[in-house]
Formats: sequence, structure tokens, C-alpha cells
Amino acid sequence: MALLGLDLGGTKLASAVFDDQGNLLQKEILALNDQEGSAVGRLITTHILNVRKVFASKQHPVNSIGIGVPGIYRARTETVWAPNIPGWTDYPLLNEIKTVVSDIPVTIDSDRACYILGEVWKGRARQCTDAVFLSVGTGIGAGILVNGEVLRGSHDVAGAIGWMALDPPFRKEYKNTGCFESIASGDGIARLAKYLLREQPDYDGELRGIGTGEITSHQVLNAYNHNDSIARVVIGRCIQFWGMAVANLISLLNPEKIIFGGGVFGPAAALLPQIKAEAEKWAQPIGVTQVTIEQSGLQGDAGVFGAGFLALKNSGH
Amino acid sequence: MALLGLDLGGTKLASAVFDDQGNLLQKEILALNDQEGSAVGRLITTHILNVRKVFASKQHPVNSIGIGVPGIYRARTETVWAPNIPGWTDYPLLNEIKTVVSDIPVTIDSDRACYILGEVWKGRARQCTDAVFLSVGTGIGAGILVNGEVLRGSHDVAGAIGWMALDPPFRKEYKNTGCFESIASGDGIARLAKYLLREQPDYDGELRGIGTGEITSHQVLNAYNHNDSIARVVIGRCIQFWGMAVANLISLLNPEKIIFGGGVFGPAAALLPQIKAEAEKWAQPIGVTQVTIEQSGLQGDAGVFGAGFLALKNSGH
Repeated sequence: MALLGLDLGGTKLASAVFDDQGNLLQKEILALNDQEGSAVGRLITTHILNVRKVFASKQHPVNSIGIGVPGIYRARTETVWAPNIPGWTDYPLLNEIKTVVSDIPVTIDSDRACYILGEVWKGRARQCTDAVFLSVGTGIGAGILVNGEVLRGSHDVAGAIGWMALDPPFRKEYKNTGCFESIASGDGIARLAKYLLREQPDYDGELRGIGTGEITSHQVLNAYNHNDSIARVVIGRCIQFWGMAVANLISLLNPEKIIFGGGVFGPAAALLPQIKAEAEKWAQPIGVTQVTIEQSGLQGDAGVFGAGFLALKNSGH
Repeated sequence: MALLGLDLGGTKLASAVFDDQGNLLQKEILALNDQEGSAVGRLITTHILNVRKVFASKQHPVNSIGIGVPGIYRARTETVWAPNIPGWTDYPLLNEIKTVVSDIPVTIDSDRACYILGEVWKGRARQCTDAVFLSVGTGIGAGILVNGEVLRGSHDVAGAIGWMALDPPFRKEYKNTGCFESIASGDGIARLAKYLLREQPDYDGELRGIGTGEITSHQVLNAYNHNDSIARVVIGRCIQFWGMAVANLISLLNPEKIIFGGGVFGPAAALLPQIKAEAEKWAQPIGVTQVTIEQSGLQGDAGVFGAGFLALKNSGH
């Protein structure tokens, strides 16, 4: 038996095949190459057919498929809203796949649901019934596990933590992506650094040589480690907001683990002790002693592992 | 068949008897009269024995008992932490009751769990699987329903929304009760009004005649309706934070309903349209269209109804 896990992103499709113990048998990345709408659907179905053919010939037939999508999976209508894939406002992905796969289960969920499921299966949330994966990359989202199940909400939109209100009064910068994401995502880090560079013509630090259009969150994090004045303002602000978000997850959900992943954690994982110290100021004082805060055990692979676990859970085995 | 629901508070025990359709057969309130520790336990067991005797004689025997407690019910150890009842740091309430009640089920949960269960049974959350009861009184807490079940968290502390971090940087006023509660609870309203009265010796409004030691949140809400300058500052600030909290519940949990109750809502229910308008600025834009925000349908009785529903759920019928 083999399980196929697919993690669709805005620019690429990550694919992994597992045995039913969760051992990784094969992994590959396919670029979307700016394809849109049903072309992305065809890329996925073609890939599925190829993998099934290859693994059937290896006497490891694929018995179940799981897919994580970058946005919302509407379980009732079986359609996908993925803001970074043009044409996927209500895309019938399950139906598309079923036209070529009719003999084995296909299960779809959001990428953030897959992240926490991946950690439950093979990462840092094993044995947990209540845990959160906080994904901080270009944007911010949360996969939330309660009572051993992914929290979906009434219409599958739960976990939109990038919209968390943390710094009143409301400002227009929060309008498109939410307050927390506008401040403490990779994009937010780069944006504030660029702003401060423009405002400080006399600044003579690490980030000076980089064209302001080019600055990335990783460069700002690197400059923070060298005590750069702008980076310390930007990252210091992020530590505060990451800590407040952790506190709010603790006070509301009382989880056993909060796991940081995504492209920013990554390098920002060194900041976890400072983030925890900030959270300890704010959080419910009993709950804060009952949680551990960790970096993802699977790094960029949490999504494919979670998709593989989706496949396993619905494999009928 | 009859169900006994008990809602224990810091100063009183509310008791109600229901039939299995949720019709209220009897309701009474017993004062705790500053009793502490096991004396409160004895008050509860004595009351249970009395009610059972009375209803047995009416041919309506009590078949199941539910109890809401003002704090945390630790399901694993079957003990209660109730900060407002001296001696109840880890009180074995279930065991105490079982010494006198051995023949019918007894079920305990936190007051906030009971509030949302009461609304599910007979209030504004009927047919909901994902809903929140936001209780704003002396303090602030939330009863959270996800996937049709009360969210307990890993150690039964979930729903401690009074600790929500909403206004950085951290200030020492947040230390004892949390940021949100220190600002937007009944106590927070009274505290800020008193502070502003002391700071404004020339103030000549509605609240002037009241001794600053005596001001209540209800008086401030009343003065707000008369356009009092201090009340407008205090309540305007609360509307902002109540709106942010609503937004955060929407973005994280994607509920169908958020229900305001507790002593402040009550009179603050007239502010719900303004609270919703504030939430709409901050919240995830899809989720915010999928929620309604309402006042409790049961008012001060949400707790006893929820305790009655606990009793029903575990009655074996």
C-alpha cells in the first residue's frame, strides 16, 4: 500500500509518496509556471496518473490520495478558494480528480489543516489532541487541532489568524491581509524595513547596500543577528506580536503545543525563547504552563506529510 | 423524569428543575452567605437532597444532575478550581456529591461551558455546531462550541478570553485579570470611569453626584445613553475592544453565532450594532459575513439551562 500526499502552493505542487507507516518513498516538486484555472487542475490530475502508474509497476499501488490547497476547501460544495491561483475562486478540484480517479479515496483540505496533521503524524504534535501550527511565511495562517480533530468552523474558514486584531486603532494597512499578518508576516517584515530605510537617509547599517525594493524577511532576520538598528526595531516589533498571538491561542484554546513553521521559521526559530517570554506576560497563567512552543519538526514538508496523513485517515485501512 | 440544573456563582447557587423537553418546572436562588470550602459543598448536597425529595413526592423524580462551577472543572481529577470560593483551589465536588447521590448521573462543567450549552438547548444557539457565548460581567469568559462540542482544551482551561492580548505594550494593569478583562469587563468600565472622574475635577456630568467608590458599569452605561463625556470615552473604548474580540473569534473559529451575555449585556446589548461595525473592520472578510451577533436569549438563566442540558445529555435517555 502507498499513500500519495500533494501540497499545492501558489507557485508549485509538492508531491510525496509514503508507505502506511509514514516512511517517505518519493518526493518531488513541480512548478506551476504561472498556469491558471483548470490548467492547474490538469497538472494535478496528470501528475496523479503518472505517480499511480510508476508505483503500480513497483508493486506499491497508491491506495489513497490526500491534497492540501492554499486557501479554503469548502467541504459542502467540494470546491476550492485559492486566492493565489487565478480562476480558483470556487474550483471543483475534487470533481476534476474524480474524472480520472474513481477507484480509490481522494481527500482534500486546506494547507493549514495539513500542516498540523503532518505534525500530528510525523512531527512535533504526535500524541497531541490540542495543538496549533502557526505558519508564518508570505502570509500567516493557523492549523488548529482540538479534541484530536482539525477545527474547521461553520464554513471551513477557521484558522485565519492573520486577521487577528492586536493593535488598535484600526489602520488602513490592515485592510487587505489583517492586522497581525500586515505586521508580522514575511511581507510585513520586509515592508516595515523598507519604510524605515526610506525614512532614515543617514542609516549606515547592514541593510544599506540592498535596494529597498529587494529586501527580504530573511535579510532582515540576518541583520537582526548582527544587531542592526533597523532590523532590531522591525524584529522586536514582530516578537511582541508573535508573543501576543501565542498568548491568545493559549488563553482561548489551551493547547499542548504551538508549532511555528513557514518560511520565516526558518531563521526566526532562534527567537522562540523571546516569543515565549512575551507570551508569558499576556496569557492565562495556568494555560501558559501547559504548553510548549516549538519549531516545526517537518519544516517545508509539513504540508505533504499532512496530505499523506489525510490519505491514510481516509484509506479505509 | 426531571433534570436538576445548578449554576454555582461566587455569591449564590441558582437551581432549576426541568422536564426532559427543557420546560422549567421550578427555579430558586440560594445565597452562599460568605460560606467557604466544604461548607459550600454541603450547601449543594443538602439542596440536592431536598429537591430530590420534593420532586419524588410529585411523581417527577430527578433522573440526572448537571452543575456549572465558576472557574475550571478539571475533568481528569474531577476537582474544581473556583477563585471566588475560598478553599476551592482543587475541591473534590463530584466526590462530595457522590457520597449522597449514588443512583443517578452527576455531571459538572465550567460555568462558561454551561452558558453556551444553555443557548444551544433553549436559547439563541439552537441548531448551531459552532458558536461562542461571550460572558461580560465582573469578569470576562467565553463558552466555545466547535463541531457541536464544548471546547475544553488540553487541561480544561480553554475559553479564558479575558486574557486576550489586544493593546500593546503590556501594562501592569493587565497582570491580574488579563488585558481584555481589565479594559472591557464591568470592573474595567467602573475603574476607568473612576479614574477619569478623579483626573477631571471640572467635570460636571451625570456621574458627578456618585461617590467615585460607588460607580458601577450600569451607571456608566446609563450615562453613555445621556451623552455624558466621561461615559462616552469609557464605553467607546469598550466598544472597540469588544469589536476586536468578536473579530478574533470570527477569524480563528468561524462561528455561526456570537452571543453576548453576563451582567453588562444586559444594558450594553443596545451597543451590539456598534460592536459588529467595529468587528467588521478587523475580521476575516468571509467569516464575518457568516456570523450573527446577538444578546443571550436566556439572560441570567443561561447557566442553569446549560446545567440542565448537561444533565439531559448524560441522563442515559
